[in-house]
Amino acid sequence: MASTVNPPRGMRDFLPAEKARRERVLGVIRGSYRAHGFDEIETPVMEDSSRLHAGLGGDNEKLAFAVMKRGLTAEKLQAASEALDLADLGLRFDLTVPLARFYATHRAELPKVFRAIQIAPVWRAERPQKGRFRQFMQCDIDIMGEPGVSAEIELIAATAATLDALGIAGCTIRVNDRRLLASALSALGFPAKEHDAVLITVDKLDKLGADGVIAELRERAFPDEPVAALAEFLRRPAPQTKPEFTAEAMRAALPDGVNEAVVLELAAIGHAVEASRGTPGALIEFDPWLVRGMGYYTGAIFEVAHPSLGYSLGGGGRYDGMIGRFLGSDVPAVGFSLGFERLVDLVELDDAASDDQVALVYDADVDPAALIRLQAELIHAGKRVRLEARPRKLPQLLEQLRDSGFHSFATVRTDSLSIASLEFKPLNGQ
Amino acid sequence: MASTVNPPRGMRDFLPAEKARRERVLGVIRGSYRAHGFDEIETPVMEDSSRLHAGLGGDNEKLAFAVMKRGLTAEKLQAASEALDLADLGLRFDLTVPLARFYATHRAELPKVFRAIQIAPVWRAERPQKGRFRQFMQCDIDIMGEPGVSAEIELIAATAATLDALGIAGCTIRVNDRRLLASALSALGFPAKEHDAVLITVDKLDKLGADGVIAELRERAFPDEPVAALAEFLRRPAPQTKPEFTAEAMRAALPDGVNEAVVLELAAIGHAVEASRGTPGALIEFDPWLVRGMGYYTGAIFEVAHPSLGYSLGGGGRYDGMIGRFLGSDVPAVGFSLGFERLVDLVELDDAASDDQVALVYDADVDPAALIRLQAELIHAGKRVRLEARPRKLPQLLEQLRDSGFHSFATVRTDSLSIASLEFKPLNGQ
Repeated sequence: MASTVNPPRGMRDFLPAEKARRERVLGVIRGSYRAHGFDEIETPVMEDSSRLHAGLGGDNEKLAFAVMKRGLTAEKLQAASEALDLADLGLRFDLTVPLARFYATHRAELPKVFRAIQIAPVWRAERPQKGRFRQFMQCDIDIMGEPGVSAEIELIAATAATLDALGIAGCTIRVNDRRLLASALSALGFPAKEHDAVLITVDKLDKLGADGVIAELRERAFPDEPVAALAEFLRRPAPQTKPEFTAEAMRAALPDGVNEAVVLELAAIGHAVEASRGTPGALIEFDPWLVRGMGYYTGAIFEVAHPSLGYSLGGGGRYDGMIGRFLGSDVPAVGFSLGFERLVDLVELDDAASDDQVALVYDADVDPAALIRLQAELIHAGKRVRLEARPRKLPQLLEQLRDSGFHSFATVRTDSLSIASLEFKPLNGQ
Repeated sequence: MASTVNPPRGMRDFLPAEKARRERVLGVIRGSYRAHGFDEIETPVMEDSSRLHAGLGGDNEKLAFAVMKRGLTAEKLQAASEALDLADLGLRFDLTVPLARFYATHRAELPKVFRAIQIAPVWRAERPQKGRFRQFMQCDIDIMGEPGVSAEIELIAATAATLDALGIAGCTIRVNDRRLLASALSALGFPAKEHDAVLITVDKLDKLGADGVIAELRERAFPDEPVAALAEFLRRPAPQTKPEFTAEAMRAALPDGVNEAVVLELAAIGHAVEASRGTPGALIEFDPWLVRGMGYYTGAIFEVAHPSLGYSLGGGGRYDGMIGRFLGSDVPAVGFSLGFERLVDLVELDDAASDDQVALVYDADVDPAALIRLQAELIHAGKRVRLEARPRKLPQLLEQLRDSGFHSFATVRTDSLSIASLEFKPLNGQ
């Protein structure tokens, strides 16, 4: 019989085994980011409604859960013309808008180049569907205050090392630049004012394929010539062997006349990451038609692809203008976010390192004080100790202890109240 | 100049040093609870509004942040007669109501006696004041499915051991029982239907003192005789030396004719905890007039007092009826909650154990790929490595690195791109 008492729609409970697994994976991510010199911070789960709806969150703004003002009288309810009039706070829909607000609040206390870790839940009122949740974890690293490509290189290297630490093999980090996209569209003959509209369709390349994108652009009545010119590039077959990430290879994949300074910057990023990994062609690749939806990107953009998934494992980019929206003066910033819910299922963690877990199954007449003392001694010796009153059906309890990750058990009687007298038997059922 | 960009009212950001400190303290608490055989779980931050407002949260229900329904049209706004009509979700105000809901949802998958850890934030729309926040952490342990006092003993022992692990000395755990309070009030002559009303005033004993409580009871026009009889007990001077926690000592502190079965149960809890600690009179004490506000308690109640604080560090009790409200059938349950925001300031953690933190200060012409490889090698060797471009003013950077917890730095030049050629200098300014 299915239970009728459930968590809110689209949200999940985590039982002990799953919670422990998630915390261990988060621990690996946190440890790897920290080792790369990033510092963890925390912001409240809510931000002022006006900041969440400042136009920086793109489509996600519409998905923000709104938190009602307190003390609303019937009169005030009547006076509202739209729902947001009644909300003064909202749950964050990403970690980037709160980070920009945090940086604007604390800039004077932060180092000139600030490397932030945020590992925290976000909320979106999405239509619940398989694999989409209304509360989910994001793992972000950001570098603020560094205008040069060393920020992009550090972020990509730290992300790649973290995927390695998690044992997730076969990822590709696709890289492009919003300025390069703009100059490529110009070179193809699209007027600047149409770029955003064209990119909305180009962004669907993974889903629609080249023919689908071209068809949609024609349907949306963009001029024939630039669409035909773009089609030529989109329909090029993928090379048999992945080319090295060089300026030359980039130029070959782009129309003539693109922004050469950006080509050189991006090639420097690609080369540094490839060279640091020691295997050219692996991990990082230039993708001239990668768009990424968010409107706030101003430079390099990246996305992690994994062969087993039809969607990205994470992504990010440079967003130099965003902090200025809160602070009044622009601060260069780049971020890289990993989608925790997508990657947690790909991780296989070795269980061997976990602590020694034992159960003490005690008779009803055992002195509770002596039992607690015994537990304290075993804990002091480095064990995890579950106390269990001896039930009528012992095998069921032992099975459940084994399933909960305990390794051995000992029976405690009134005459066996010292560690020396305990006889531990393995719980392993194999 | 004060910044005008702030987190929402009553909520806090945590900068790297404070975030690291909080996570370390939470790690000690989590580790201690786990070692005592408890299992961590997680629930969503929101619950359905109807569950949060089911009458189980006492006064805290009024402080719940309400989350608006999605897709509210102007018409629907007009039709609302009160604010809660427009909310379908709310942020949890404690971890007990969500735990009861969790247990009702997952009972079939949980062990018969289930020991839960919850370490998570809660939200209350309190009037902001010093030391009160609208988002704050709670650390709860609960045992569900155990009707006997072994549950209370385990919870108090695990809590005491956790306070020990945190190095917080001098705490007292005050213990009483709601059934004992009821039978004491009856013995003094208060009719049963007036007990709840009387307890509201008795609950203020710490704040008002005995005379204040008696004055308020007279003001509220409770009958003279029982009030006078109660006054005699409340005005008794505290004993010079704390008595042992025995049934005899309890009877001496209570009116004649109280519930003897409850006296024996509570004495068993007190005795077991005292005996397990090896120091009678320390840590745990019987407090015949401890009330604790929440209406859902049905048996033993506890509260942690610390000499340096005017408020409790935590508390809990037995709430056997609560899960039944969601599940339909009663399940025995006891919980103990530590107020993290109150205790975190009392903790002094030894910094010595933290990892070796180094900075690489690199010249502008250093090859980024070689630099990233060098960082990876040092991380592999167990170090935490911050990369910093050499600035014009090096001393300022070194000072900031030291303040951020880094221990040493090395300069990286194009001719020193191997670990062997790095010369680490200490950052310690003393």
